[in-house]
Amino acid sequence: MSLLVTGSIGIDTVETPFGKRDDVIGGSAIYFSYAASFFTPVRLVGVVGEDCPKHYFDIFNDREVDTGGLEVRKGSKTFRWHGSYLKDLNEAQTVEVDLNVLAERAPKIPENFRDSRHIFLANTHPVLQQEMLGSLKTPKLVVADTMNLWIQTEHAELKKLLKKIHGLVLNDGEARLLTEKKNLIEAAKDVLKMGPKFVVIKKGEHGAMMVSDRDTFVLPAFPAEKVVDPTGAGDSFAGGMMGYLSSQNTFSPATIKRAMAFGTVVASYTIADFSLGGLKSTSRDAIDDRWHEYKQAMSF
Amino acid sequence: MSLLVTGSIGIDTVETPFGKRDDVIGGSAIYFSYAASFFTPVRLVGVVGEDCPKHYFDIFNDREVDTGGLEVRKGSKTFRWHGSYLKDLNEAQTVEVDLNVLAERAPKIPENFRDSRHIFLANTHPVLQQEMLGSLKTPKLVVADTMNLWIQTEHAELKKLLKKIHGLVLNDGEARLLTEKKNLIEAAKDVLKMGPKFVVIKKGEHGAMMVSDRDTFVLPAFPAEKVVDPTGAGDSFAGGMMGYLSSQNTFSPATIKRAMAFGTVVASYTIADFSLGGLKSTSRDAIDDRWHEYKQAMSF
Repeated sequence: MSLLVTGSIGIDTVETPFGKRDDVIGGSAIYFSYAASFFTPVRLVGVVGEDCPKHYFDIFNDREVDTGGLEVRKGSKTFRWHGSYLKDLNEAQTVEVDLNVLAERAPKIPENFRDSRHIFLANTHPVLQQEMLGSLKTPKLVVADTMNLWIQTEHAELKKLLKKIHGLVLNDGEARLLTEKKNLIEAAKDVLKMGPKFVVIKKGEHGAMMVSDRDTFVLPAFPAEKVVDPTGAGDSFAGGMMGYLSSQNTFSPATIKRAMAFGTVVASYTIADFSLGGLKSTSRDAIDDRWHEYKQAMSF
Repeated sequence: MSLLVTGSIGIDTVETPFGKRDDVIGGSAIYFSYAASFFTPVRLVGVVGEDCPKHYFDIFNDREVDTGGLEVRKGSKTFRWHGSYLKDLNEAQTVEVDLNVLAERAPKIPENFRDSRHIFLANTHPVLQQEMLGSLKTPKLVVADTMNLWIQTEHAELKKLLKKIHGLVLNDGEARLLTEKKNLIEAAKDVLKMGPKFVVIKKGEHGAMMVSDRDTFVLPAFPAEKVVDPTGAGDSFAGGMMGYLSSQNTFSPATIKRAMAFGTVVASYTIADFSLGGLKSTSRDAIDDRWHEYKQAMSF
Protein backbone atom coordinates (compact mmCIF):
# COMPACT_ATOMS: atom_id res chain seq x y z
CA MET A 1 0.00 0.00 0.00
CA SER A 2 1.51 3.33 -0.94
CA LEU A 3 1.22 6.48 1.08
CA LEU A 4 1.07 9.75 -0.82
CA VAL A 5 1.79 13.07 0.82
CA THR A 6 1.49 16.51 -0.63
CA GLY A 7 2.43 19.64 1.26
CA SER A 8 5.04 22.35 1.57
CA ILE A 9 8.76 22.11 0.89
CA GLY A 10 10.70 25.05 2.22
CA ILE A 11 14.01 26.72 2.88
CA ASP A 12 14.00 27.39 6.61
CA THR A 13 15.98 29.66 8.86
CA VAL A 14 15.48 28.71 12.49
CA GLU A 15 16.62 30.23 15.77
CA THR A 16 16.31 28.42 19.08
CA PRO A 17 18.11 28.78 22.43
CA PHE A 18 20.55 26.16 21.06
CA GLY A 19 21.66 28.13 18.01
CA LYS A 20 20.68 29.26 14.55
CA ARG A 21 20.53 27.41 11.25
CA ASP A 22 20.30 29.31 7.95
CA ASP A 23 18.74 27.96 4.80
CA VAL A 24 18.08 24.39 5.88
CA ILE A 25 15.55 22.05 4.31
CA GLY A 26 12.09 22.13 5.87
CA GLY A 27 8.39 22.10 5.08
CA SER A 28 5.52 19.86 6.14
CA ALA A 29 5.90 17.36 3.28
CA ILE A 30 9.61 16.89 3.96
CA TYR A 31 9.26 16.09 7.66
CA PHE A 32 6.20 13.96 6.97
CA SER A 33 7.88 11.95 4.21
CA TYR A 34 11.03 11.22 6.17
CA ALA A 35 9.04 10.25 9.27
CA ALA A 36 6.59 8.04 7.36
CA SER A 37 9.38 6.31 5.43
CA PHE A 38 10.42 4.41 8.56
CA PHE A 39 7.21 2.44 8.14
CA THR A 40 6.17 2.35 4.51
CA PRO A 41 7.18 3.59 1.02
CA VAL A 42 6.19 7.22 0.51
CA ARG A 43 5.26 9.17 -2.62
CA LEU A 44 6.13 12.84 -2.27
CA VAL A 45 4.32 15.52 -4.23
CA GLY A 46 5.48 19.11 -3.91
CA VAL A 47 6.87 22.09 -5.70
CA VAL A 48 10.00 24.21 -5.25
CA GLY A 49 11.53 27.05 -7.23
CA GLU A 50 14.69 27.18 -9.28
CA ASP A 51 16.60 28.43 -6.23
CA CYS A 52 16.17 25.21 -4.27
CA PRO A 53 19.54 23.49 -3.78
CA LYS A 54 19.43 20.07 -5.44
CA HIS A 55 21.48 18.47 -2.67
CA TYR A 56 18.57 19.07 -0.26
CA PHE A 57 16.92 15.95 -1.59
CA ASP A 58 19.98 13.80 -0.96
CA ILE A 59 18.41 13.15 2.46
CA PHE A 60 16.02 10.79 0.70
CA ASN A 61 18.78 8.84 -1.07
CA ASP A 62 18.65 5.90 1.29
CA ARG A 63 14.96 6.24 2.13
CA GLU A 64 11.96 4.68 0.43
CA VAL A 65 10.70 8.09 -0.68
CA ASP A 66 9.72 8.41 -4.32
CA THR A 67 10.39 12.03 -5.26
CA GLY A 68 8.84 11.56 -8.69
CA GLY A 69 6.17 14.09 -7.75
CA LEU A 70 8.67 16.82 -6.99
CA GLU A 71 8.35 19.72 -9.40
CA VAL A 72 11.15 22.26 -9.84
CA ARG A 73 9.28 25.20 -11.32
CA LYS A 74 11.20 27.51 -13.63
CA GLY A 75 10.95 31.20 -12.86
CA SER A 76 9.61 30.53 -9.37
CA LYS A 77 11.15 30.81 -5.95
CA THR A 78 10.98 28.28 -3.13
CA PHE A 79 8.80 28.83 -0.06
CA ARG A 80 10.88 30.39 2.72
CA TRP A 81 10.20 30.53 6.44
CA HIS A 82 12.25 32.19 9.15
CA GLY A 83 11.11 31.25 12.63
CA SER A 84 12.31 31.88 16.15
CA TYR A 85 11.78 29.88 19.34
CA LEU A 86 13.90 32.20 21.47
CA LYS A 87 10.88 33.41 23.45
CA ASP A 88 9.07 30.12 23.81
CA LEU A 89 10.26 26.67 22.72
CA ASN A 90 6.64 25.60 22.40
CA GLU A 91 5.54 28.23 19.93
CA ALA A 92 7.33 29.51 16.85
CA GLN A 93 7.40 33.22 16.22
CA THR A 94 7.43 33.81 12.48
CA VAL A 95 10.16 36.36 11.76
CA GLU A 96 9.58 36.31 8.02
CA VAL A 97 7.62 34.20 5.56
CA ASP A 98 7.63 34.22 1.75
CA LEU A 99 5.02 31.90 0.22
CA ASN A 100 6.65 32.26 -3.21
CA VAL A 101 5.80 29.15 -5.26
CA LEU A 102 3.22 28.02 -2.68
CA ALA A 103 1.06 30.97 -3.70
CA GLU A 104 0.98 29.67 -7.29
CA ARG A 105 -0.85 26.68 -8.79
CA ALA A 106 -0.59 23.32 -7.06
CA PRO A 107 1.95 20.74 -8.16
CA LYS A 108 0.58 18.00 -10.41
CA ILE A 109 0.15 14.50 -9.07
CA PRO A 110 2.03 12.22 -11.51
CA GLU A 111 -0.05 9.65 -13.38
CA ASN A 112 1.74 6.73 -11.70
CA PHE A 113 0.90 8.13 -8.22
CA ARG A 114 -2.84 8.33 -8.86
CA ASP A 115 -3.55 4.82 -7.61
CA SER A 116 -2.30 5.74 -4.10
CA ARG A 117 -4.69 4.44 -1.45
CA HIS A 118 -3.50 6.35 1.59
CA ILE A 119 -3.26 10.10 1.35
CA PHE A 120 -2.01 12.83 3.63
CA LEU A 121 -2.95 16.32 2.52
CA ALA A 122 -0.48 18.38 4.53
CA ASN A 123 -1.36 21.96 5.24
CA THR A 124 -2.04 24.09 2.18
CA HIS A 125 -4.97 26.03 0.64
CA PRO A 126 -8.15 23.90 0.99
CA VAL A 127 -9.00 24.45 -2.68
CA LEU A 128 -5.66 22.92 -3.67
CA GLN A 129 -6.21 20.10 -1.18
CA GLN A 130 -9.56 19.31 -2.85
CA GLU A 131 -8.06 19.56 -6.33
CA MET A 132 -5.30 17.11 -5.49
CA LEU A 133 -7.73 14.76 -3.81
CA GLY A 134 -9.91 14.91 -6.92
CA SER A 135 -7.13 13.60 -9.12
CA LEU A 136 -6.74 10.39 -7.11
CA LYS A 137 -8.53 7.29 -8.38
CA THR A 138 -9.52 5.23 -5.34
CA PRO A 139 -8.31 6.74 -2.09
CA LYS A 140 -9.08 4.54 0.91
CA LEU A 141 -7.80 6.69 3.78
CA VAL A 142 -7.57 10.46 3.43
CA VAL A 143 -6.24 12.55 6.27
CA ALA A 144 -5.67 16.30 6.08
CA ASP A 145 -3.96 18.98 8.11
CA THR A 146 -4.88 22.65 8.05
CA MET A 147 -3.95 25.93 9.72
CA ASN A 148 -5.30 29.14 11.25
CA LEU A 149 -5.01 31.09 8.01
CA TRP A 150 -7.44 28.83 6.11
CA ILE A 151 -9.82 28.51 9.04
CA GLN A 152 -10.11 32.28 9.06
CA THR A 153 -9.99 33.13 5.37
CA GLU A 154 -11.28 30.02 3.55
CA HIS A 155 -13.87 28.67 5.95
CA ALA A 156 -16.37 27.60 3.27
CA GLU A 157 -13.78 25.73 1.21
CA LEU A 158 -12.36 24.10 4.33
CA LYS A 159 -15.86 22.92 5.26
CA LYS A 160 -16.19 21.36 1.80
CA LEU A 161 -12.85 19.58 2.24
CA LEU A 162 -13.90 18.24 5.65
CA LYS A 163 -16.82 16.39 4.03
CA LYS A 164 -14.39 14.51 1.78
CA ILE A 165 -11.79 13.26 4.25
CA HIS A 166 -11.65 10.49 6.86
CA GLY A 167 -9.38 12.17 9.39
CA LEU A 168 -8.33 15.68 10.32
CA VAL A 169 -5.08 16.46 12.12
CA LEU A 170 -4.74 19.91 13.65
CA ASN A 171 -3.32 21.58 16.72
CA ASP A 172 -5.23 22.67 19.82
CA GLY A 173 -5.38 26.35 18.90
CA GLU A 174 -6.66 25.52 15.43
CA ALA A 175 -9.32 23.17 16.82
CA ARG A 176 -10.55 25.92 19.12
CA LEU A 177 -10.56 28.46 16.30
CA LEU A 178 -12.43 26.14 13.92
CA THR A 179 -15.17 25.24 16.41
CA GLU A 180 -15.19 28.19 18.80
CA LYS A 181 -15.15 25.64 21.63
CA LYS A 182 -12.51 25.96 24.34
CA ASN A 183 -12.81 22.43 25.70
CA LEU A 184 -10.85 20.18 23.33
CA ILE A 185 -13.19 17.19 23.58
CA GLU A 186 -16.14 19.41 22.76
CA ALA A 187 -14.13 20.96 19.93
CA ALA A 188 -13.20 17.52 18.56
CA LYS A 189 -16.83 16.37 18.63
CA ASP A 190 -17.83 19.47 16.72
CA VAL A 191 -15.19 18.67 14.08
CA LEU A 192 -16.69 15.18 13.73
CA LYS A 193 -20.04 16.78 12.89
CA MET A 194 -18.31 18.56 10.00
CA GLY A 195 -17.47 15.27 8.29
CA PRO A 196 -14.30 13.45 9.42
CA LYS A 197 -14.61 10.05 11.10
CA PHE A 198 -11.77 10.89 13.46
CA VAL A 199 -9.86 13.96 14.55
CA VAL A 200 -6.37 14.11 16.01
CA ILE A 201 -5.55 17.20 18.05
CA LYS A 202 -1.84 17.90 18.52
CA LYS A 203 -1.01 19.59 21.82
CA GLY A 204 2.74 20.13 21.40
CA GLU A 205 4.64 19.34 24.61
CA HIS A 206 1.38 17.98 26.07
CA GLY A 207 0.97 15.22 23.49
CA ALA A 208 -2.00 14.42 21.28
CA MET A 209 -5.63 13.37 21.48
CA MET A 210 -7.78 11.31 19.12
CA VAL A 211 -11.55 11.51 19.13
CA SER A 212 -13.94 9.44 17.04
CA ASP A 213 -17.64 8.70 17.46
CA ARG A 214 -16.86 5.88 19.84
CA ASP A 215 -13.42 6.62 21.27
CA THR A 216 -11.43 9.27 23.05
CA PHE A 217 -7.74 8.62 23.44
CA VAL A 218 -5.10 10.92 24.94
CA LEU A 219 -1.34 10.37 24.76
CA PRO A 220 1.29 12.50 26.49
CA ALA A 221 4.37 13.53 24.54
CA PHE A 222 7.51 11.44 24.98
CA PRO A 223 9.23 13.12 27.95
CA ALA A 224 12.10 15.16 26.49
CA GLU A 225 14.64 16.86 28.69
CA LYS A 226 16.22 18.73 25.81
CA VAL A 227 14.28 20.25 22.96
CA VAL A 228 16.75 21.65 20.43
CA ASP A 229 14.36 22.61 17.61
CA PRO A 230 10.63 21.80 17.61
CA THR A 231 10.20 22.65 13.91
CA GLY A 232 8.50 19.79 12.12
CA ALA A 233 7.43 17.95 15.28
CA GLY A 234 3.75 18.01 14.29
CA ASP A 235 4.49 16.90 10.71
CA SER A 236 6.80 14.14 11.97
CA PHE A 237 4.06 13.00 14.34
CA ALA A 238 1.60 12.88 11.43
CA GLY A 239 4.20 11.10 9.28
CA GLY A 240 4.90 8.44 11.89
CA MET A 241 1.21 7.96 12.52
CA MET A 242 0.19 7.75 8.86
CA GLY A 243 3.24 5.67 7.94
CA TYR A 244 2.34 3.07 10.53
CA LEU A 245 -1.38 3.13 9.65
CA SER A 246 -0.56 2.70 5.99
CA SER A 247 1.76 -0.23 6.73
CA GLN A 248 -0.99 -1.94 8.72
CA ASN A 249 -3.70 -1.16 6.17
CA THR A 250 -6.36 -1.17 8.88
CA PHE A 251 -7.75 1.82 10.70
CA SER A 252 -9.35 0.40 13.80
CA PRO A 253 -9.22 2.52 16.97
CA ALA A 254 -6.57 0.17 18.42
CA THR A 255 -4.41 0.61 15.32
CA ILE A 256 -4.83 4.38 15.41
CA LYS A 257 -3.68 4.35 19.06
CA ARG A 258 -0.53 2.42 18.23
CA ALA A 259 0.00 4.66 15.22
CA MET A 260 -0.24 7.79 17.39
CA ALA A 261 2.31 6.31 19.76
CA PHE A 262 4.65 5.75 16.81
CA GLY A 263 4.04 9.34 15.72
CA THR A 264 4.87 10.53 19.23
CA VAL A 265 8.13 8.58 19.26
CA VAL A 266 9.20 9.72 15.80
CA ALA A 267 8.53 13.36 16.76
CA SER A 268 10.73 12.90 19.84
CA TYR A 269 13.68 12.37 17.49
CA THR A 270 12.80 15.38 15.35
CA ILE A 271 12.96 17.86 18.24
CA ALA A 272 16.34 16.58 19.44
CA ASP A 273 18.25 18.34 16.63
CA PHE A 274 17.88 21.05 14.00
CA SER A 275 16.06 20.48 10.69
CA LEU A 276 16.09 16.81 9.64
CA GLY A 277 19.12 16.05 11.85
CA GLY A 278 17.13 14.23 14.51
CA LEU A 279 15.27 12.01 12.05
CA LYS A 280 18.48 11.23 10.15
CA SER A 281 20.11 10.07 13.39
CA THR A 282 17.59 7.32 14.07
CA SER A 283 16.41 4.03 12.58
CA ARG A 284 13.35 1.84 12.61
CA ASP A 285 15.01 -0.38 15.23
CA ALA A 286 15.70 2.57 17.53
CA ILE A 287 12.13 3.80 17.02
CA ASP A 288 10.73 0.38 17.88
CA ASP A 289 12.85 0.24 21.04
CA ARG A 290 11.71 3.67 22.15
CA TRP A 291 8.10 2.79 21.28
CA HIS A 292 8.28 -0.20 23.63
CA GLU A 293 9.91 1.94 26.31
CA TYR A 294 7.13 4.51 25.91
CA LYS A 295 4.41 1.85 25.97
CA GLN A 296 5.94 0.44 29.15
CA ALA A 297 6.20 3.88 30.76
CA MET A 298 2.56 4.63 29.93
CA SER A 299 1.13 1.41 31.32
CA PHE A 300 0.15 1.07 34.95
CA MET B 1 -1.69 2.41 58.13
CA SER B 2 -3.11 5.81 58.79
CA LEU B 3 -2.76 8.79 56.52
CA LEU B 4 -2.51 12.20 58.13
CA VAL B 5 -3.18 15.40 56.23
CA THR B 6 -2.78 18.93 57.40
CA GLY B 7 -3.67 21.91 55.27
CA SER B 8 -6.20 24.64 54.74
CA ILE B 9 -9.92 24.55 55.44
CA GLY B 10 -11.81 27.41 53.90
CA ILE B 11 -15.07 29.10 53.12
CA ASP B 12 -15.06 29.48 49.33
CA THR B 13 -17.00 31.60 46.91
CA VAL B 14 -16.54 30.35 43.37
CA GLU B 15 -17.66 31.63 39.99
CA THR B 16 -17.42 29.55 36.82
CA PRO B 17 -19.22 29.67 33.47
CA PHE B 18 -21.71 27.24 35.06
CA GLY B 19 -22.75 29.48 37.93
CA LYS B 20 -21.73 30.86 41.30
CA ARG B 21 -21.61 29.28 44.74
CA ASP B 22 -21.32 31.44 47.86
CA ASP B 23 -19.76 30.30 51.11
CA VAL B 24 -19.20 26.64 50.31
CA ILE B 25 -16.73 24.37 52.07
CA GLY B 26 -13.28 24.25 50.51
CA GLY B 27 -9.58 24.18 51.29
CA SER B 28 -6.77 21.81 50.40
CA ALA B 29 -7.19 19.55 53.44
CA ILE B 30 -10.91 19.12 52.81
CA TYR B 31 -10.60 18.02 49.19
CA PHE B 32 -7.60 15.88 50.04
CA SER B 33 -9.31 14.12 52.97
CA TYR B 34 -12.47 13.33 51.07
CA ALA B 35 -10.53 12.05 48.05
CA ALA B 36 -8.13 9.95 50.15
CA SER B 37 -10.95 8.45 52.21
CA PHE B 38 -12.05 6.34 49.24
CA PHE B 39 -8.88 4.33 49.81
CA THR B 40 -7.82 4.51 53.44
CA PRO B 41 -8.78 6.05 56.81
CA VAL B 42 -7.71 9.68 57.03
CA ARG B 43 -6.73 11.85 59.99
CA LEU B 44 -7.50 15.50 59.34
CA VAL B 45 -5.62 18.30 61.10
CA GLY B 46 -6.68 21.87 60.46
CA VAL B 47 -7.99 25.02 62.03
CA VAL B 48 -11.07 27.16 61.40
CA GLY B 49 -12.52 30.20 63.14
CA GLU B 50 -15.67 30.56 65.19
CA ASP B 51 -17.57 31.61 62.08
CA CYS B 52 -17.21 28.24 60.35
CA PRO B 53 -20.63 26.57 60.01
CA LYS B 54 -20.61 23.29 61.96
CA HIS B 55 -22.70 21.53 59.34
CA TYR B 56 -19.80 21.86 56.87
CA PHE B 57 -18.22 18.81 58.44
CA ASP B 58 -21.32 16.68 57.99
CA ILE B 59 -19.80 15.73 54.65
CA PHE B 60 -17.44 13.46 56.58
CA ASN B 61 -20.25 11.73 58.50
CA ASP B 62 -20.20 8.61 56.38
CA ARG B 63 -16.49 8.78 55.51
CA GLU B 64 -13.53 7.30 57.34
CA VAL B 65 -12.19 10.75 58.15
CA ASP B 66 -11.18 11.34 61.76
CA THR B 67 -11.76 15.04 62.41
CA GLY B 68 -10.20 14.82 65.88
CA GLY B 69 -7.48 17.20 64.73
CA LEU B 70 -9.92 19.91 63.75
CA GLU B 71 -9.49 23.00 65.91
CA VAL B 72 -12.24 25.64 66.14
CA ARG B 73 -10.30 28.65 67.36
CA LYS B 74 -12.15 31.19 69.48
CA GLY B 75 -11.80 34.80 68.42
CA SER B 76 -10.50 33.80 65.00
CA LYS B 77 -12.06 33.83 61.57
CA THR B 78 -11.97 31.07 58.97
CA PHE B 79 -9.80 31.32 55.86
CA ARG B 80 -11.85 32.69 52.97
CA TRP B 81 -11.20 32.52 49.26
CA HIS B 82 -13.21 34.00 46.42
CA GLY B 83 -12.12 32.76 43.01
CA SER B 84 -13.33 33.13 39.47
CA TYR B 85 -12.85 30.88 36.44
CA LEU B 86 -14.92 33.08 34.14
CA LYS B 87 -11.88 34.04 32.06
CA ASP B 88 -10.15 30.68 31.97
CA LEU B 89 -11.42 27.36 33.33
CA ASN B 90 -7.83 26.23 33.74
CA GLU B 91 -6.66 29.02 35.99
CA ALA B 92 -8.41 30.59 38.95
CA GLN B 93 -8.39 34.34 39.26
CA THR B 94 -8.38 35.24 42.96
CA VAL B 95 -11.04 37.90 43.47
CA GLU B 96 -10.44 38.14 47.20
CA VAL B 97 -8.53 36.18 49.82
CA ASP B 98 -8.51 36.51 53.62
CA LEU B 99 -5.95 34.26 55.30
CA ASN B 100 -7.53 34.95 58.71
CA VAL B 101 -6.76 31.98 61.00
CA LEU B 102 -4.22 30.60 58.50
CA ALA B 103 -1.98 33.58 59.28
CA GLU B 104 -1.91 32.57 62.98
CA ARG B 105 -0.14 29.66 64.69
CA ALA B 106 -0.50 26.16 63.24
CA PRO B 107 -3.10 23.75 64.56
CA LYS B 108 -1.79 21.17 67.03
CA ILE B 109 -1.46 17.57 65.98
CA PRO B 110 -3.37 15.54 68.59
CA GLU B 111 -1.35 13.07 70.67
CA ASN B 112 -3.20 10.07 69.23
CA PHE B 113 -2.36 11.17 65.65
CA ARG B 114 1.39 11.33 66.26
CA ASP B 115 2.02 7.71 65.29
CA SER B 116 0.77 8.38 61.74
CA ARG B 117 3.11 6.81 59.18
CA HIS B 118 1.94 8.50 55.99
CA ILE B 119 1.80 12.26 55.93
CA PHE B 120 0.61 14.84 53.45
CA LEU B 121 1.63 18.38 54.26
CA ALA B 122 -0.79 20.32 52.10
CA ASN B 123 0.16 23.81 51.09
CA THR B 124 0.90 26.16 53.98
CA HIS B 125 3.89 28.16 55.36
CA PRO B 126 7.01 25.94 55.16
CA VAL B 127 7.90 26.75 58.79
CA LEU B 128 4.53 25.39 59.90
CA GLN B 129 5.00 22.36 57.65
CA GLN B 130 8.33 21.63 59.36
CA GLU B 131 6.85 22.20 62.82
CA MET B 132 4.04 19.75 62.19
CA LEU B 133 6.40 17.22 60.68
CA GLY B 134 8.61 17.57 63.77
CA SER B 135 5.80 16.50 66.09
CA LEU B 136 5.33 13.15 64.35
CA LYS B 137 7.06 10.12 65.84
CA THR B 138 7.97 7.79 62.99
CA PRO B 139 6.79 9.07 59.63
CA LYS B 140 7.49 6.63 56.82
CA LEU B 141 6.25 8.56 53.78
CA VAL B 142 6.10 12.34 53.84
CA VAL B 143 4.81 14.24 50.83
CA ALA B 144 4.34 18.00 50.71
CA ASP B 145 2.69 20.55 48.48
CA THR B 146 3.69 24.20 48.24
CA MET B 147 2.81 27.35 46.32
CA ASN B 148 4.24 30.39 44.52
CA LEU B 149 4.00 32.60 47.60
CA TRP B 150 6.41 30.46 49.67
CA ILE B 151 8.75 29.84 46.77
CA GLN B 152 9.12 33.59 46.44
CA THR B 153 9.03 34.74 50.06
CA GLU B 154 10.27 31.74 52.12
CA HIS B 155 12.81 30.16 49.84
CA ALA B 156 15.30 29.25 52.59
CA GLU B 157 12.67 27.59 54.79
CA LEU B 158 11.20 25.77 51.82
CA LYS B 159 14.67 24.43 50.99
CA LYS B 160 14.98 23.14 54.57
CA LEU B 161 11.60 21.42 54.27
CA LEU B 162 12.61 19.78 50.98
CA LYS B 163 15.49 18.00 52.74
CA LYS B 164 13.03 16.36 55.13
CA ILE B 165 10.40 14.96 52.77
CA HIS B 166 10.17 12.01 50.40
CA GLY B 167 7.94 13.53 47.77
CA LEU B 168 6.96 16.97 46.55
CA VAL B 169 3.73 17.69 44.68
CA LEU B 170 3.46 21.01 42.88
CA ASN B 171 2.06 22.46 39.69
CA ASP B 172 3.99 23.25 36.52
CA GLY B 173 4.22 26.99 37.12
CA GLU B 174 5.50 26.41 40.65
CA ALA B 175 8.10 23.91 39.45
CA ARG B 176 9.37 26.42 36.93
CA LEU B 177 9.45 29.18 39.54
CA LEU B 178 11.29 27.02 42.08
CA THR B 179 13.98 25.86 39.69
CA GLU B 180 14.08 28.61 37.07
CA LYS B 181 13.97 25.83 34.45
CA LYS B 182 11.34 25.99 31.74
CA ASN B 183 11.55 22.36 30.66
CA LEU B 184 9.53 20.36 33.21
CA ILE B 185 11.80 17.30 33.20
CA GLU B 186 14.81 19.51 33.85
CA ALA B 187 12.84 21.32 36.53
CA ALA B 188 11.83 18.04 38.17
CA LYS B 189 15.44 16.80 38.18
CA ASP B 190 16.52 20.02 39.85
CA VAL B 191 13.88 19.49 42.54
CA LEU B 192 15.29 15.99 43.17
CA LYS B 193 18.68 17.59 43.87
CA MET B 194 17.01 19.63 46.62
CA GLY B 195 16.08 16.51 48.59
CA PRO B 196 12.88 14.67 47.59
CA LYS B 197 13.10 11.13 46.19
CA PHE B 198 10.27 11.86 43.78
CA VAL B 199 8.43 14.87 42.47
CA VAL B 200 4.94 14.99 41.00
CA ILE B 201 4.18 17.92 38.73
CA LYS B 202 0.49 18.67 38.20
CA LYS B 203 -0.31 20.10 34.77
CA GLY B 204 -4.05 20.79 35.15
CA GLU B 205 -5.98 19.79 32.03
CA HIS B 206 -2.76 18.23 30.68
CA GLY B 207 -2.41 15.69 33.47
CA ALA B 208 0.55 14.99 35.72
CA MET B 209 4.16 13.83 35.59
CA MET B 210 6.27 11.93 38.11
CA VAL B 211 10.04 12.03 38.08
CA SER B 212 12.39 10.07 40.32
CA ASP B 213 16.06 9.23 39.94
CA ARG B 214 15.21 6.24 37.80
CA ASP B 215 11.78 6.94 36.34
CA THR B 216 9.84 9.47 34.37
CA PHE B 217 6.14 8.90 34.02
CA VAL B 218 3.56 11.13 32.36
CA LEU B 219 -0.21 10.68 32.59
CA PRO B 220 -2.80 12.73 30.69
CA ALA B 221 -5.86 13.98 32.55
CA PHE B 222 -9.04 11.94 32.30
CA PRO B 223 -10.73 13.41 29.19
CA ALA B 224 -13.55 15.62 30.47
CA GLU B 225 -16.05 17.21 28.14
CA LYS B 226 -17.59 19.34 30.87
CA VAL B 227 -15.59 21.04 33.61
CA VAL B 228 -18.01 22.72 36.02
CA ASP B 229 -15.59 23.83 38.75
CA PRO B 230 -11.89 22.94 38.81
CA THR B 231 -11.43 24.07 42.42
CA GLY B 232 -9.78 21.33 44.46
CA ALA B 233 -8.77 19.21 41.43
CA GLY B 234 -5.09 19.26 42.42
CA ASP B 235 -5.84 18.46 46.08
CA SER B 236 -8.21 15.67 45.05
CA PHE B 237 -5.51 14.28 42.77
CA ALA B 238 -3.05 14.33 45.67
CA GLY B 239 -5.67 12.79 47.97
CA GLY B 240 -6.45 9.95 45.59
CA MET B 241 -2.77 9.33 44.98
CA MET B 242 -1.75 9.38 48.66
CA GLY B 243 -4.83 7.46 49.74
CA TYR B 244 -4.02 4.64 47.38
CA LEU B 245 -0.28 4.69 48.23
CA SER B 246 -1.09 4.56 51.94
CA SER B 247 -3.49 1.66 51.41
CA GLN B 248 -0.78 -0.28 49.57
CA ASN B 249 1.95 0.64 52.03
CA THR B 250 4.60 0.36 49.33
CA PHE B 251 6.06 3.15 47.27
CA SER B 252 7.61 1.45 44.28
CA PRO B 253 7.50 3.31 40.96
CA ALA B 254 4.81 0.90 39.72
CA THR B 255 2.65 1.65 42.77
CA ILE B 256 3.17 5.40 42.38
CA LYS B 257 2.01 5.10 38.76
CA ARG B 258 -1.18 3.30 39.73
CA ALA B 259 -1.65 5.80 42.56
CA MET B 260 -1.35 8.73 40.15
CA ALA B 261 -3.93 7.13 37.90
CA PHE B 262 -6.30 6.86 40.89
CA GLY B 263 -5.59 10.52 41.69
CA THR B 264 -6.40 11.43 38.09
CA VAL B 265 -9.70 9.56 38.21
CA VAL B 266 -10.74 11.01 41.58
CA ALA B 267 -9.99 14.54 40.34
CA SER B 268 -12.19 13.89 37.30
CA TYR B 269 -15.16 13.61 39.70
CA THR B 270 -14.20 16.78 41.59
CA ILE B 271 -14.31 19.00 38.50
CA ALA B 272 -17.72 17.73 37.42
CA ASP B 273 -19.57 19.75 40.07
CA PHE B 274 -19.13 22.65 42.48
CA SER B 275 -17.30 22.31 45.81
CA LEU B 276 -17.41 18.73 47.17
CA GLY B 277 -20.47 17.88 45.04
CA GLY B 278 -18.55 15.80 42.52
CA LEU B 279 -16.74 13.74 45.15
CA LYS B 280 -19.95 13.21 47.11
CA SER B 281 -21.63 11.83 44.00
CA THR B 282 -19.18 8.97 43.52
CA SER B 283 -18.07 5.77 45.25
CA ARG B 284 -15.05 3.51 45.40
CA ASP B 285 -16.78 1.13 42.98
CA ALA B 286 -17.41 3.90 40.45
CA ILE B 287 -13.81 5.08 40.86
CA ASP B 288 -12.49 1.57 40.27
CA ASP B 289 -14.64 1.22 37.15
CA ARG B 290 -13.41 4.52 35.76
CA TRP B 291 -9.83 3.62 36.68
CA HIS B 292 -10.08 0.46 34.59
CA GLU B 293 -11.68 2.42 31.74
CA TYR B 294 -8.83 4.94 31.94
CA LYS B 295 -6.18 2.22 32.09
CA GLN B 296 -7.74 0.60 29.04
CA ALA B 297 -7.91 3.90 27.15
CA MET B 298 -4.25 4.61 27.93
CA SER B 299 -2.91 1.26 26.81
CA PHE B 300 -1.95 0.61 23.21
